[in-house]
Amino acid sequence: MTYTIEQVKALIREYPDFPSEGILFRDIFPIFQQPEAVVCLTDHFVERIKGLGKRIDVVVGLDARGFLFGPLIAIKLGVAFVPVRKRGKLPGEVVDVTYMKEYGEDIFQMQAEGIKAGQNVVIVDDLLATGGSCKAAEELVAKLKGTVVLNAFVISLEGLEGHKKLSAPVYSLIEC
Amino acid sequence: MTYTIEQVKALIREYPDFPSEGILFRDIFPIFQQPEAVVCLTDHFVERIKGLGKRIDVVVGLDARGFLFGPLIAIKLGVAFVPVRKRGKLPGEVVDVTYMKEYGEDIFQMQAEGIKAGQNVVIVDDLLATGGSCKAAEELVAKLKGTVVLNAFVISLEGLEGHKKLSAPVYSLIEC
Repeated sequence: MTYTIEQVKALIREYPDFPSEGILFRDIFPIFQQPEAVVCLTDHFVERIKGLGKRIDVVVGLDARGFLFGPLIAIKLGVAFVPVRKRGKLPGEVVDVTYMKEYGEDIFQMQAEGIKAGQNVVIVDDLLATGGSCKAAEELVAKLKGTVVLNAFVISLEGLEGHKKLSAPVYSLIEC
Repeated sequence: MTYTIEQVKALIREYPDFPSEGILFRDIFPIFQQPEAVVCLTDHFVERIKGLGKRIDVVVGLDARGFLFGPLIAIKLGVAFVPVRKRGKLPGEVVDVTYMKEYGEDIFQMQAEGIKAGQNVVIVDDLLATGGSCKAAEELVAKLKGTVVLNAFVISLEGLEGHKKLSAPVYSLIEC
């Protein structure tokens, strides 16, 4: 079957009290049970990105769920896909930023050759929550003198105001 | 440009002594700098899988680098993509297996609804090393009464004999 974007949204399933009490977890993996739904979701993001009317050079995806969408979107746009990963997983010359979490800190890295000065970048991830990891990705792109033109998410949790941490515009398929 | 599979292989870069001394790390991310190379790699795997002459129902990908290829391959085959993740990341009913590592153990999980009894499954990941995580994925599929018909990797390290741990056949683009 062919999916509409509303039908794709309806595949996302809610699990109360996961991973801990009081958290409503939204699971995107039922979308991946239906290949046509993944294609619809990819096409939706690609149209949004093309609608910016800007040259796009790189799609950046955050480990791990940004890896599910990032290459699909990059291929449709005909551009590079570049990962952001936690420290120690990417070889060669890297740039890094420290990301403050609720308990302690994490270091995120990107390969220095991943982005060239002046390139336009779209960052993709499944979920915008507090915005900390996406802000770290924005900073990595800035260190390599790229420009983030859009942060694209499947879901954003508006109550956490993650978009306020980010420099570039945000698009979310679902705001809740 | 259009890539041949030999040109895709040539994009993989070697880093001696990463992440620790004596380890030769092979980095697949340069492939993702070239969208046409990712398409070539995907098509190569899809042809191999179709060449089995078996009905394929599900592609299983291991967190995180299996997420880069899994959805691409699943979409081309027109089948579901199902993730294997470490404990605590997947909501709802899950099956799990314990995987012994060099130091301590890890628990891998798969959502119980991801695979139905009698389905044929291909497991994909970037690297076959000792085979422990792929063996865990095979066991998860078996718990849900699916059948693994192929384990597909970009690279396998033959010296570690990971294939000997696995029940299903192995295909690797590169054996080294």
